[in-house]
Amino acid sequence: VKVLVTGASGFIGREVTKRLCERRFEVHAVARKSLTIADEIWHELDLFDSGAVDNLMRQIKPTHLVHLAWTTEPGQFWNSPENHDWERASKHLFDSFTAHGGKRFVGAGTCAEYEWNEKLCRESDADSVPSTVYGQSKLSTWKYVDSRSQETGAISAWGRIFWLYGPHEHPSRLVPHVIKSILAGRHVDCTSGEQLRDFMHVSDVAESFVRLTDSQVTGPINIASGNAVAVREVVLQIASQMSGEQLVRLGALPTKASEPHVVAADVQRLTSLLSFRPSVSLSDGLNSTISWIKSVSAAAASK
Amino acid sequence: VKVLVTGASGFIGREVTKRLCERRFEVHAVARKSLTIADEIWHELDLFDSGAVDNLMRQIKPTHLVHLAWTTEPGQFWNSPENHDWERASKHLFDSFTAHGGKRFVGAGTCAEYEWNEKLCRESDADSVPSTVYGQSKLSTWKYVDSRSQETGAISAWGRIFWLYGPHEHPSRLVPHVIKSILAGRHVDCTSGEQLRDFMHVSDVAESFVRLTDSQVTGPINIASGNAVAVREVVLQIASQMSGEQLVRLGALPTKASEPHVVAADVQRLTSLLSFRPSVSLSDGLNSTISWIKSVSAAAASK
Repeated sequence: VKVLVTGASGFIGREVTKRLCERRFEVHAVARKSLTIADEIWHELDLFDSGAVDNLMRQIKPTHLVHLAWTTEPGQFWNSPENHDWERASKHLFDSFTAHGGKRFVGAGTCAEYEWNEKLCRESDADSVPSTVYGQSKLSTWKYVDSRSQETGAISAWGRIFWLYGPHEHPSRLVPHVIKSILAGRHVDCTSGEQLRDFMHVSDVAESFVRLTDSQVTGPINIASGNAVAVREVVLQIASQMSGEQLVRLGALPTKASEPHVVAADVQRLTSLLSFRPSVSLSDGLNSTISWIKSVSAAAASK
Repeated sequence: VKVLVTGASGFIGREVTKRLCERRFEVHAVARKSLTIADEIWHELDLFDSGAVDNLMRQIKPTHLVHLAWTTEPGQFWNSPENHDWERASKHLFDSFTAHGGKRFVGAGTCAEYEWNEKLCRESDADSVPSTVYGQSKLSTWKYVDSRSQETGAISAWGRIFWLYGPHEHPSRLVPHVIKSILAGRHVDCTSGEQLRDFMHVSDVAESFVRLTDSQVTGPINIASGNAVAVREVVLQIASQMSGEQLVRLGALPTKASEPHVVAADVQRLTSLLSFRPSVSLSDGLNSTISWIKSVSAAAASK
């Protein structure tokens, strides 16, 4: 098994890379900038450069491809035109992979591919119309991969990620933002946070992708915990664990009218096909994320 | 502290009675039929007999009242006219309690007091119109208690219970029904089970009521986990723990059109006012419930 991981330096990618190395796979890590995680082999690469992608595929000839790279600029990515560039680059990446003998493809999809209508998001609902450019581009990438897989004999799966958190998340995103604000003694202005979302710790997300890669499961599969919690509950659990309740201002920011009340996942495919259940509870996961951010902040302060 | 518990032989009541005894309260247990739980004192009583209620209050003069009794006949109680009888009996019980010097009242409310409209159920939403007779009767009981408390100086709280499960649940309800069917090797016909509900183990429900009783918190308070899970996930977790997946037929029964997609609780009052978070995870709680039902079935079989 020779597996190539894109977005290997990212939030999920570095954890996937580490776990694939632990399984004794030959891991080739691709990102624009390299770092060292375990015993993976690094290749600095711009995925928008199709010639460079073809060269790398010809050189490595990976049997497995885990494609995690995409634009993720907080706040921007939902409707950024860059999504179309990533769609194009992802399609080319897949074609180049199979053209050089690749067989097992696993890509990162998103819950934004579903229509958010208060119902459970189920992989078998084929008619959903995503409301964001991000969701549309991911779904159209998957549809392309799915139909090309049938022509080329590739065995392809698509892990649809819901909400996640943990070490190395972008600091402006919800969980790190709340933790860092409370650490600094600053007020945290939030919406009322009554919307229900499915949160999963990044290590469980990564483990799901690793099991998926090491399986023959095909099709879309939700990567989620099966528990929906109010976003306010996440914020208040953090505040409570840090004794910073008085800094949290729920309702200080208006809730967008377009914000759905509920985005919840059906997890039966994940549970039954991969025998996977999350191992990190929300409370433990937030606790260790707080510890991690504290240790990183302390290290930065002591420099 | 002298506490009187109604419905003390019930699903929640027996666990509340046990825990109140553990706190070294003088516990007077009331039900139509007595049993022995810990060192509580039993009084067989029909709560519809207002003269008998007055006699008991005069005799005991409880300082605290935990009122859990109500009609709970599975399938029937939602719209049964008996709800009106229980509303009347509950109002009289409260008045008799305060007339004999009682100060601290805690009653069992229900999530059915809220309008089920996909939003988080919040205690501060005062305008909800319950859609069932059960919800209407419970809400109108609470409104009566609340206004009479202001006149009499009683300190009253109202624990609104969501979904729960655990030992001693009525065998025809979801969790025991699924467990017993799989134990017997029978098929389990279910709806598709995509609706999200907040499930809490009965021991956590009981502990919340005990803490509420032993506090000065007033007003309605949701008794729930803060996690909403799909009902199918509950069924499939049971099946998976019992290796009975092949017996479960999700979608064999039609989902009622009136069934709301989501009933989820805001748990901030429970969390902040009582510093309570549930201690039993869904997976552990189902596991121990399976063990309990197995042990009871084995005991019955060996008789």
